[in-house]
Amino acid sequence: MTSTPPPSTWRGFASDNYAGIHPEVLAAIAEVNAGHQVAYGDDDVTAALDETIRAHFGPDAVAFPVFNGTGANVVALQAMTRRWEAVVCAASAHVNVDEGGAPEHGAGLKLWTIPTSDGKLTPQLIDTQAWGFGDVHRAQPGAVTITESTELGTVYSVDEIRAVADHAHRLGMRVHLDGARLANAAAALGVTLRDLTTDAGVDVVSFGGTKNGAMLSEAVVVLNPEAAPGVDFLRKTSMQLASKMRFISAQLLALLSNDLWHRNAMHSNAMAAELAARVSGLPDVVIARPVQANAVFAVLPPEVTARLQERFRFYTWDQGTGEVRWMCSWDTTLEDVEAFAAAIADEVSVRA
Amino acid sequence: MTSTPPPSTWRGFASDNYAGIHPEVLAAIAEVNAGHQVAYGDDDVTAALDETIRAHFGPDAVAFPVFNGTGANVVALQAMTRRWEAVVCAASAHVNVDEGGAPEHGAGLKLWTIPTSDGKLTPQLIDTQAWGFGDVHRAQPGAVTITESTELGTVYSVDEIRAVADHAHRLGMRVHLDGARLANAAAALGVTLRDLTTDAGVDVVSFGGTKNGAMLSEAVVVLNPEAAPGVDFLRKTSMQLASKMRFISAQLLALLSNDLWHRNAMHSNAMAAELAARVSGLPDVVIARPVQANAVFAVLPPEVTARLQERFRFYTWDQGTGEVRWMCSWDTTLEDVEAFAAAIADEVSVRA
Amino acid sequence: MTSTPPPSTWRGFASDNYAGIHPEVLAAIAEVNAGHQVAYGDDDVTAALDETIRAHFGPDAVAFPVFNGTGANVVALQAMTRRWEAVVCAASAHVNVDEGGAPEHGAGLKLWTIPTSDGKLTPQLIDTQAWGFGDVHRAQPGAVTITESTELGTVYSVDEIRAVADHAHRLGMRVHLDGARLANAAAALGVTLRDLTTDAGVDVVSFGGTKNGAMLSEAVVVLNPEAAPGVDFLRKTSMQLASKMRFISAQLLALLSNDLWHRNAMHSNAMAAELAARVSGLPDVVIARPVQANAVFAVLPPEVTARLQERFRFYTWDQGTGEVRWMCSWDTTLEDVEAFAAAIADEVSVRA
Amino acid sequence: MTSTPPPSTWRGFASDNYAGIHPEVLAAIAEVNAGHQVAYGDDDVTAALDETIRAHFGPDAVAFPVFNGTGANVVALQAMTRRWEAVVCAASAHVNVDEGGAPEHGAGLKLWTIPTSDGKLTPQLIDTQAWGFGDVHRAQPGAVTITESTELGTVYSVDEIRAVADHAHRLGMRVHLDGARLANAAAALGVTLRDLTTDAGVDVVSFGGTKNGAMLSEAVVVLNPEAAPGVDFLRKTSMQLASKMRFISAQLLALLSNDLWHRNAMHSNAMAAELAARVSGLPDVVIARPVQANAVFAVLPPEVTARLQERFRFYTWDQGTGEVRWMCSWDTTLEDVEAFAAAIADEVSVRA
Repeated sequence: MTSTPPPSTWRGFASDNYAGIHPEVLAAIAEVNAGHQVAYGDDDVTAALDETIRAHFGPDAVAFPVFNGTGANVVALQAMTRRWEAVVCAASAHVNVDEGGAPEHGAGLKLWTIPTSDGKLTPQLIDTQAWGFGDVHRAQPGAVTITESTELGTVYSVDEIRAVADHAHRLGMRVHLDGARLANAAAALGVTLRDLTTDAGVDVVSFGGTKNGAMLSEAVVVLNPEAAPGVDFLRKTSMQLASKMRFISAQLLALLSNDLWHRNAMHSNAMAAELAARVSGLPDVVIARPVQANAVFAVLPPEVTARLQERFRFYTWDQGTGEVRWMCSWDTTLEDVEAFAAAIADEVSVRA
Repeated sequence: MTSTPPPSTWRGFASDNYAGIHPEVLAAIAEVNAGHQVAYGDDDVTAALDETIRAHFGPDAVAFPVFNGTGANVVALQAMTRRWEAVVCAASAHVNVDEGGAPEHGAGLKLWTIPTSDGKLTPQLIDTQAWGFGDVHRAQPGAVTITESTELGTVYSVDEIRAVADHAHRLGMRVHLDGARLANAAAALGVTLRDLTTDAGVDVVSFGGTKNGAMLSEAVVVLNPEAAPGVDFLRKTSMQLASKMRFISAQLLALLSNDLWHRNAMHSNAMAAELAARVSGLPDVVIARPVQANAVFAVLPPEVTARLQERFRFYTWDQGTGEVRWMCSWDTTLEDVEAFAAAIADEVSVRA
Repeated sequence: MTSTPPPSTWRGFASDNYAGIHPEVLAAIAEVNAGHQVAYGDDDVTAALDETIRAHFGPDAVAFPVFNGTGANVVALQAMTRRWEAVVCAASAHVNVDEGGAPEHGAGLKLWTIPTSDGKLTPQLIDTQAWGFGDVHRAQPGAVTITESTELGTVYSVDEIRAVADHAHRLGMRVHLDGARLANAAAALGVTLRDLTTDAGVDVVSFGGTKNGAMLSEAVVVLNPEAAPGVDFLRKTSMQLASKMRFISAQLLALLSNDLWHRNAMHSNAMAAELAARVSGLPDVVIARPVQANAVFAVLPPEVTARLQERFRFYTWDQGTGEVRWMCSWDTTLEDVEAFAAAIADEVSVRA
Repeated sequence: MTSTPPPSTWRGFASDNYAGIHPEVLAAIAEVNAGHQVAYGDDDVTAALDETIRAHFGPDAVAFPVFNGTGANVVALQAMTRRWEAVVCAASAHVNVDEGGAPEHGAGLKLWTIPTSDGKLTPQLIDTQAWGFGDVHRAQPGAVTITESTELGTVYSVDEIRAVADHAHRLGMRVHLDGARLANAAAALGVTLRDLTTDAGVDVVSFGGTKNGAMLSEAVVVLNPEAAPGVDFLRKTSMQLASKMRFISAQLLALLSNDLWHRNAMHSNAMAAELAARVSGLPDVVIARPVQANAVFAVLPPEVTARLQERFRFYTWDQGTGEVRWMCSWDTTLEDVEAFAAAIADEVSVRA
């Protein structure tokens, strides 16, 4: 056994971002490449995407394609808040812990963070930060953002999202959903994208394509236009407006056509379930959280983790507890899972 | 003749962004698609790009691929200034007039703008805004940014860039070059990318790939690391860090390999020269500016412009003077130019 | 004659900020000092100020006292613009040249600047920057700001302000007036504060007390509440909310009571007129601009300026032309003017 | 008993901001009022303050007077962090909960917040957020800010501050101290201002004058210039530079002369201790936190609180637990305390 880290091209379980472009998406890019198209979104491909978005999210939905998830979140949250308002989120939210401070640095957004056990907000939890309305000393809670599926691999039910949305609306706040892995959640629940968003009371979605098989493409999908004025301007001032937009739109269109989003999500979810099933009986391996989408969180002995990380790439999530995260993607194969589960079994047995 | 605007797919001269992806770039994307790669830039393709960047810009050059030109400019200028500093630029600069206020809104950057006749700054012009050093009432001039080729289709010579850089450095300022069309300038001058940047004293370049034949890919290229600390962090906080970075890097790598950047730039420059040559003798058509890269600026009678815009897409640059802009791209064909020049001749003759 | 600069306590013509607190203002501070008062503006003094503001500016006017003029301007302009909008102003405006970039750095506000001959905007001049509505590439013009009296000592007439306001409103923009020296303008024109603002169509005023005899006190006065939502919150987030507010309010109240604002402004205006009259006949002294408020701009031979600045403090406004600025304040005496005019005559004669 | 809230002028225990100006401070303002002084800090009073600051904080200390505590904190923290860095603080810190989001909105500062039991950070607590150095996804911890005395009325010992500072410095971070009530802490501990700051390893202090008896005056005191470049520029761009600076400086000078800061702090601390002593034996009254400075936190039955608030102004700190806060100020009299304690006893007995 070597102490060199695995080559950057090895199969891994570190992130669903390690996978490449799904062939259908790549084909869609090539297909729209011929000839000239008007730049910045006035093109035929984006027009087709608009129609598809309405089919998936309802007749009032409007999509603004952007480059990445951080961009989608920051554009959406700026549009949903006034200059003096703040955003309520779980402490574990990507906007809080994993965007380098982009909401604060780039948009002046204050985050009111809430510790959670499972990455999910509830009306009761929201109340711990959504107060002080009208008090100038307190950054005014203007929007709530939730992540579906969450950063901890859990999934809000439709009813849970509706409860959050109804509560936030009663308080005069708007509701944002970070859907970098919305596809995984919808597939896991067996519901439509619209069930989880428009029909559950969400105002704006950051809809993720990249982790679902695109090269790079996300969209701010506005479901309630009154809740998010100026997205078109804010996309530009937030450096998220692509000139050759047709190629971003084509990716989203490919995912939303022929059920590709659903096929990819079902597959990555299934691989995560398979992985969890294969290792859950092993000694010294504890599945730490419910496996509801395409992530498996487990607690391993640190020395097992160390040896495993020389063979496969994945992240330690919490140094203190020894919790690790294994992500499955659209291109994870059953052979990948078998090989990884076998390696885990090996390394655990060395210890035992 | 119809009054409907031309379909979005018609050949046009509105922008070099209307073209698609060069086949060699598209092939490069497909080529790096197999298997897993570490996300966010720790991949083999980006490592190869690093080497190629050094070959083109010198051994100290470091590239940070980003999504678009606005992003490249805003990341670079943030890194090059302290919180209280400002940026000196031509009033016609893209950062001032065409980025929706991104430098100010997203990064708090004040621009000290300078009117110019041809889009180019000189030491004398810089002095009109680069003063008041040490005076707290004046936003401190911290960096100068120039555009090559300029927004007006003109090209700085190597000596002109060196004069700007030397002057700015003497004043304690850093030098940024917005190179969205750097390739066109280098090709026009018959010099290397390095001649125009590193060796002319530029500290940081926004190197443009999109207009040169990519799908979307630009890079902040740091030539003088002391002038731009923290670009890696600022790229993330500015929402410009791609997760599946290999596909951005592959595009830049394709352009910088096999002289593709040069071939594409030479071609679009040649098409612009051809177009100018074909229409410059026409009555009522005045070529308004030197045609030095891939843009032609001309003054036409407004009614001629109106009729032409029903047949070809292009922008009126100045309503007051009747000046229009015609851009040529890597995919503009000689037939496109012939057809357009013939149409111009037609419409002018109707008037006459 | 010495080459040491004059002591910091010498009488000077550098700025109306060199003067101290008018005795009536100082007395007002002392008068409200007894006992406890609720902090942050819920006090009796601020309630009295509210009433006085309505008497001066009309029944809908609401004042938000702040610390300084930069604060007033930045709070007002934030309230008057949405996140993606920009502010149209004269290139010579204090917000552009003399606030260290506070509008951009602290509030992300882009300024569209317009060169003027006399510091005053007109509808025609506004049109040079107020265009591109709806174009995401152009920072959207959302507000116009004018300064009364201007940074160049000139005064807008009521009709000129109304013309600017009507034009801006027709374009869908809001109108801000930087009134750091509004008192001087109203006194010069023989009109009320309301004539120049509310009744001329201005939406929000930065009303200046400091230069008019206060220690430090300015106010954002909202005349049209729909044009400026959230001023109470923005004052706090912009670090402009005083805890012991009663002392800021007492100063403004003192100025607006017993005509003190008017007496002070009439006096400083008269002193400027006196100074201009006394030196305008001198050889080599050219009064460079109309003396309409409390500033005198003159062109002197540089060596005369140099010698004079060893005896009196004042600023060179333009090194190139030799233009200097002399400000008179509420405490400038006739003896000050006589002594200064005599010194100018002396120094000029040395040259001659 | 009436249900009308007490008049705004009643004696109260809501905040040390309800008190007026100490007579020695008011006299100092009047004393420096004669004649002209150079604006923006180049005046004789500020020069005298500079010397006094060095006497109190050490020979390298430099003070930058500002308007209020939020301003001091935001200026200091901007100077202490680079554009991409974040600030570690207690969740209860004023910068987090009571500044309307000014650090985020006005300066783009992300706060990494840490729950504490007593408002105090420790090296162990700091470690819960100060990690991820070099990881672009995590806003880089650049500074730690602590409050002395804390928002919960507790006081860090000199050793506790030194432990925090040493730990932060070992991690490459800078150390800020929000000293809105630094005087109360130093008086309580019987140490000098320097003991608690410069000599304990603090880099920059927000030194508070307002709560200690001034009208309005705070200062950013830089103890380690390398840790905070550009404070002079950032004070201006943060709208915190007073034109008639002499009057801000005079207030700080008065407090720092003749031990006024110490006398005022000793008095308000003593009044708090007296109040706590008088009510701590009452049934249904629990003193909730150690009374170490000028604040008393107590838990009362809600109906007792409701009746008391009709007679005296004070804040409920936590609706859930019934905890209330009583602040004593430099002008709280023994009679005030006696009357308030008697009222508490009354209302408690009604219940009993």
